[in-house]
Amino acid sequence: MKTVPLKLVTIVAEAVLEDRLVRDLEAAGARGYTVSTARGRGSRGVRASDWEGGNVRIEVLVTDAVSDEVLHLLAERYFPHYAVVAWVERVEVVRGNKYV
Amino acid sequence: MKTVPLKLVTIVAEAVLEDRLVRDLEAAGARGYTVSTARGRGSRGVRASDWEGGNVRIEVLVTDAVSDEVLHLLAERYFPHYAVVAWVERVEVVRGNKYV
Amino acid sequence: MKTVPLKLVTIVAEAVLEDRLVRDLEAAGARGYTVSTARGRGSRGVRASDWEGGNVRIEVLVTDAVSDEVLHLLAERYFPHYAVVAWVERVEVVRGNKYV
Repeated sequence: MKTVPLKLVTIVAEAVLEDRLVRDLEAAGARGYTVSTARGRGSRGVRASDWEGGNVRIEVLVTDAVSDEVLHLLAERYFPHYAVVAWVERVEVVRGNKYV
Repeated sequence: MKTVPLKLVTIVAEAVLEDRLVRDLEAAGARGYTVSTARGRGSRGVRASDWEGGNVRIEVLVTDAVSDEVLHLLAERYFPHYAVVAWVERVEVVRGNKYV
Repeated sequence: MKTVPLKLVTIVAEAVLEDRLVRDLEAAGARGYTVSTARGRGSRGVRASDWEGGNVRIEVLVTDAVSDEVLHLLAERYFPHYAVVAWVERVEVVRGNKYV
């Protein structure tokens, strides 16, 4: 089966940021995302119960260029103000040409 | 700690497909799966609100051979008809011999 | 964008184990975790409906040393008694220095 190598960027943030994050991700070039509800405690020691509405876990499959764009926007607009966690990994995507 | 390298296949699809997907995954040789509820928008531009019941995010830990089998069945039976996203990555599994 | 390579450990277990697992993860040196609700069937053939309250899917970003520590505690205290699944992958973390 032919697959396409892409970056999977996973972002965990307060649920209230979901709409804003999704708009920013789309503006950065992301063409599809998956959102699930989560809860947790970040390394800042903020407990889940302190965050109204819990967390969201957003996944986007993107090219290297869009991945860089996404990390830059997180660093500029979110990390200074919010308890956002983000990580990147390389995955093989079926029908990956849809995302390029 | 001894780990076993396996493929983690993640499939995001409409929730109504869950039972059928799980049956097909098991028939392809998958021995265990994790399902979570998700929502999102695919690159086809289908909005989450257009999908009754949202999405499911299914994860299966499989051998290389079963991974190929799973991707083939997705390509044949799901991709032509449904907004399904799937990606594969290599992970190290504790007690991975259970899945071989 | 500068990222830090870390291990992402994902643990899927019965929901009743969540508090105990989180305490053990923190004692092993994990500084932050993400928990989502999940369901599924493990390779032992235990059906989701047999587990009161379903499963939890816990993710922790940790150093190599803490990852080893976490796998050892799972092997010692959980695997002999519970249907726990765990896998490890290398990811690139933004602001990863928070976790070291």
